[in-house]
Amino acid sequence: MAPRSKTRERIVQNSLELFNLQGERSVSTNHIAAHMEISPGNLYYHFPNKQAIIAQLFNQYEELVDSFLRPPQGRPATVQDKRFYLKALLAAMWNYRFLHRDLDYLLDSDPDLAARYRRFSRRCLQQGQAIYRGFVDAGILSLDAAQVESLTINAWIVLTAWVRFLSTTREHAAHLSEEAFKRGVYQVLVLESGFVTPTARAAVDALCEEFHVSFNQALEQ
Amino acid sequence: MAPRSKTRERIVQNSLELFNLQGERSVSTNHIAAHMEISPGNLYYHFPNKQAIIAQLFNQYEELVDSFLRPPQGRPATVQDKRFYLKALLAAMWNYRFLHRDLDYLLDSDPDLAARYRRFSRRCLQQGQAIYRGFVDAGILSLDAAQVESLTINAWIVLTAWVRFLSTTREHAAHLSEEAFKRGVYQVLVLESGFVTPTARAAVDALCEEFHVSFNQALEQ
Repeated sequence: MAPRSKTRERIVQNSLELFNLQGERSVSTNHIAAHMEISPGNLYYHFPNKQAIIAQLFNQYEELVDSFLRPPQGRPATVQDKRFYLKALLAAMWNYRFLHRDLDYLLDSDPDLAARYRRFSRRCLQQGQAIYRGFVDAGILSLDAAQVESLTINAWIVLTAWVRFLSTTREHAAHLSEEAFKRGVYQVLVLESGFVTPTARAAVDALCEEFHVSFNQALEQ
Repeated sequence: MAPRSKTRERIVQNSLELFNLQGERSVSTNHIAAHMEISPGNLYYHFPNKQAIIAQLFNQYEELVDSFLRPPQGRPATVQDKRFYLKALLAAMWNYRFLHRDLDYLLDSDPDLAARYRRFSRRCLQQGQAIYRGFVDAGILSLDAAQVESLTINAWIVLTAWVRFLSTTREHAAHLSEEAFKRGVYQVLVLESGFVTPTARAAVDALCEEFHVSFNQALEQ
């Protein structure tokens, strides 16, 4: 890798860390350059402005989610797949948490990003439905087509709104822990719990236990 | 009512209409005064700034929600009560839709409002749980205590995030119709549908049909 693209990669990674820790609006390109001990000019050589860095981070986030949010190919879905999705969703939410926290601001200030997010949102809703249909076909969930659609919408809302829900409900808004995020994933598992078939019940219950975080803990940590 | 308080009341009502139509950030106190054909000085006599008008609107919203979001007293809950809650929630969301759409901005710019919203959010979560427990006691839903808690959290998130979910997913972000809001209330009904008892099933299914709006319609209108 040439030094130039290495610096570009470091700018993206450092920006992500700072945005996650301090919030995107508190971090300027000057902060990022100072944090990396490079000149602002060097940063501008790679990115014309902060918006371009955010667009690159959203690219990465989109690629990450697209890479795992799809039904297994050529075999029936299993409860282990459910575990895989929940773990992957938790990691994506946690690693790109500034996107979830600051989404309204980011989309309001960048119409291109807003258009890409709309396509991303619709694609995730399509893939989410395909995944739920896979669980129905595999005899893990019992749902008709209308329920698959509604359940997917609720899952998407709970996941994408979880961080802002906590921020507006907790006494201490800053510094959410990964445990607090885990409760958000647990809440998605709860959405389906009324539709689990008797044969899959024990395995899904074990999954619920694995992802359980008390609500008080999510509010305090 | 004295003329002074009548003007105050008109300022609040006109502000609500303008905020709902144009978004809170697009409407200044000068816009409000011009719309009412009063002088800015007259407006400032009643409210020192826009924040004070918003605080008053939040007061009204809080009082409205507190007035209906509680279990029936001295009698068991019925499916008709469920219908009443859904209608009241829909009306509250629709009539104060700017609060839902612009919540992050409003809370970020006013720490007092953010503190009040935190208390409001926790109170609603408490009352929501009491209402769901009432449906369990009346044999309409079958849920344990942990499920009541999780279900209430999901219902609160879906309701409070619905407008922003639509705004970030629809092609045409502006001018959501009341039908689009109705789908949000339907989504809350879906949350419970896996937990309805056989005896209440027919009545709850009728309610689902009454509140049903197709997702495409919610995305387009």
